[in-house]
Amino acid sequence: MDGAFAAEELGLALNNASLPPEALRYDVTPLGLHYTLSHFDIPALKASHRLTVEGAVQRPRAFSAADLRALPQKTVRTTMECAGNGRAGMTPRYPSMPWTSGAVATAEWTGVPLAALLGQVRPVPEAVEVAFHGADLGFDSGVEHHYARSLAMRDATDEVLVAWAMNGQPLLPQHGAPLRVVVPGWYGMASVKWLTRIELLDRPFDGYQQVVGYQYRKAAGGEPVPVRHMKVKSLITPPGIPDWYTRRRLVERGQVELEGRAWSGAGVPVTRVELGVDGAWRDAEVFPPAEKYAWQRWRAVWNAVAGEHELACRATDAAGARQPPEPDWNMGGMGNNAVQRMPVTVR
Amino acid sequence: MDGAFAAEELGLALNNASLPPEALRYDVTPLGLHYTLSHFDIPALKASHRLTVEGAVQRPRAFSAADLRALPQKTVRTTMECAGNGRAGMTPRYPSMPWTSGAVATAEWTGVPLAALLGQVRPVPEAVEVAFHGADLGFDSGVEHHYARSLAMRDATDEVLVAWAMNGQPLLPQHGAPLRVVVPGWYGMASVKWLTRIELLDRPFDGYQQVVGYQYRKAAGGEPVPVRHMKVKSLITPPGIPDWYTRRRLVERGQVELEGRAWSGAGVPVTRVELGVDGAWRDAEVFPPAEKYAWQRWRAVWNAVAGEHELACRATDAAGARQPPEPDWNMGGMGNNAVQRMPVTVR
Repeated sequence: MDGAFAAEELGLALNNASLPPEALRYDVTPLGLHYTLSHFDIPALKASHRLTVEGAVQRPRAFSAADLRALPQKTVRTTMECAGNGRAGMTPRYPSMPWTSGAVATAEWTGVPLAALLGQVRPVPEAVEVAFHGADLGFDSGVEHHYARSLAMRDATDEVLVAWAMNGQPLLPQHGAPLRVVVPGWYGMASVKWLTRIELLDRPFDGYQQVVGYQYRKAAGGEPVPVRHMKVKSLITPPGIPDWYTRRRLVERGQVELEGRAWSGAGVPVTRVELGVDGAWRDAEVFPPAEKYAWQRWRAVWNAVAGEHELACRATDAAGARQPPEPDWNMGGMGNNAVQRMPVTVR
Repeated sequence: MDGAFAAEELGLALNNASLPPEALRYDVTPLGLHYTLSHFDIPALKASHRLTVEGAVQRPRAFSAADLRALPQKTVRTTMECAGNGRAGMTPRYPSMPWTSGAVATAEWTGVPLAALLGQVRPVPEAVEVAFHGADLGFDSGVEHHYARSLAMRDATDEVLVAWAMNGQPLLPQHGAPLRVVVPGWYGMASVKWLTRIELLDRPFDGYQQVVGYQYRKAAGGEPVPVRHMKVKSLITPPGIPDWYTRRRLVERGQVELEGRAWSGAGVPVTRVELGVDGAWRDAEVFPPAEKYAWQRWRAVWNAVAGEHELACRATDAAGARQPPEPDWNMGGMGNNAVQRMPVTVR
């Protein structure tokens, strides 16, 4: 990482919540430890909040909380990662939220499948996209807007949820209360919080966060590629104990149980995780996911000898994608799935 | 603030949670929005965890969760602020957690009053301090230690709690599960999390966080003054809407309802809050605290005209203490209760 961060970057780091690395130990991230990325203020929505579903539909309608709970519901355990996770590791660095590796977590979301909700309003055949509008309002690069994102109809599957509960409790304010979208397998920007309105469109959505934000761009004039599914990635649950200021780890010599998490996007499972010790790779044990969209645990035993070492882990998914040694640099600092390296001292 | 922050400072900002400023709107901070300051990793303690109370007592004993719940219990709403809150605003800046203003929140804690717990073990007359030992372990400035702090017997009052619930729910891991100390009216360092052991001492406690950390020091050779109660302070709930990157606020012209929070330490109420607009001060309305140790709401109406403005607020407590215009600088960056200044643009 570059040595110096701007006051604005610090401000964003303070305004959003990062998963403390030791919290990788939990299969389901406890309340309050799940990462957050809020573009603007957390809105104060009332319990009487209603969700409008309108646009290219035959029967536009506003749904109360009770209306939604009367529809079919399901609970999905899903790992969600911010598209900007790892941005602090890209040089030069885009001026934005300077995530290191903690913008990822796993939760159990309960809500109505989007397909069931859309069945209530009957999209017309011309509908090609579903846009989700949040209540959060502010500026980005001089453009005033409510946060909003869309999905193509083919992506608006039964697996997308309009959720009102997280880990069995009503959504907390910072996670979208009272209602949010959850799009499993995608980077987090698709999972719009504080949902006020679903709009069926007969044309592609042109909101700021859809066409300007969340694009992979190699150069200012270059062709943008939309950010979509998460990429294959893995992290190490830090062994040993930390130093307060540097967070450098101190580990006892001998047989050390190492473990961590691995995930990919679009419901593709991780099939291989390798542990790197001082540059030498060997296979770790990787466990199946508890559910299709949940991260997987990996473990390996390391015979640690006294001295300075570098640990690393590298995942490969069932589609053959493998983490690269270095970030695939892009202007916005999106989608960094480079191998994590963790220096440790063994005593 | 200085323009440049070190990677280690960013790492701490990511590892701890800051109250988003708009969350000042809640009388009681919702779960997951309360600030956290964890010196080391969040420990993974089991439900079978027992609390040992020992040392200068007649009847040392280990308490299970059920044992503790059989004792008298109470719920206290208390505002807690980190002693380092505002550190980022002190120049030169101590290399530590670079809080701006968000290391404060209010929660309802449920537990057994310390006096009732100590009644079970009967401290001997020679006992002068109560030390609280946490399970969290790591290094600070080369010293390996479990986080631990003490209170003099005169401070170990009935108002100190050994708490197992926050906002009516079992403690979350990051807030000390399954058991923590809550010392109302003090800066947060006194409220030891992940409590494993209470030790009655016939001499002052000499732990690192007691005698080295959490001291006001003007110079390396100078006499340290222990950090104790919170100082009088107030904050503004940001009006209008933010810009994503700068968090600069944009406010609509006209009658603007401004509000915020004010608190002091040791249960002393705030008696006056002044609103500053472009350097001119006038009284705001300040409401009584919901409970002795809870922050107080203040409000004022501002007739905002288009242009650039600076808002500020300044509290005075019943003991006559008033917020200073500039921080009372000290080496560790502790106890910054300088007046908050908030630039806003009115359109």
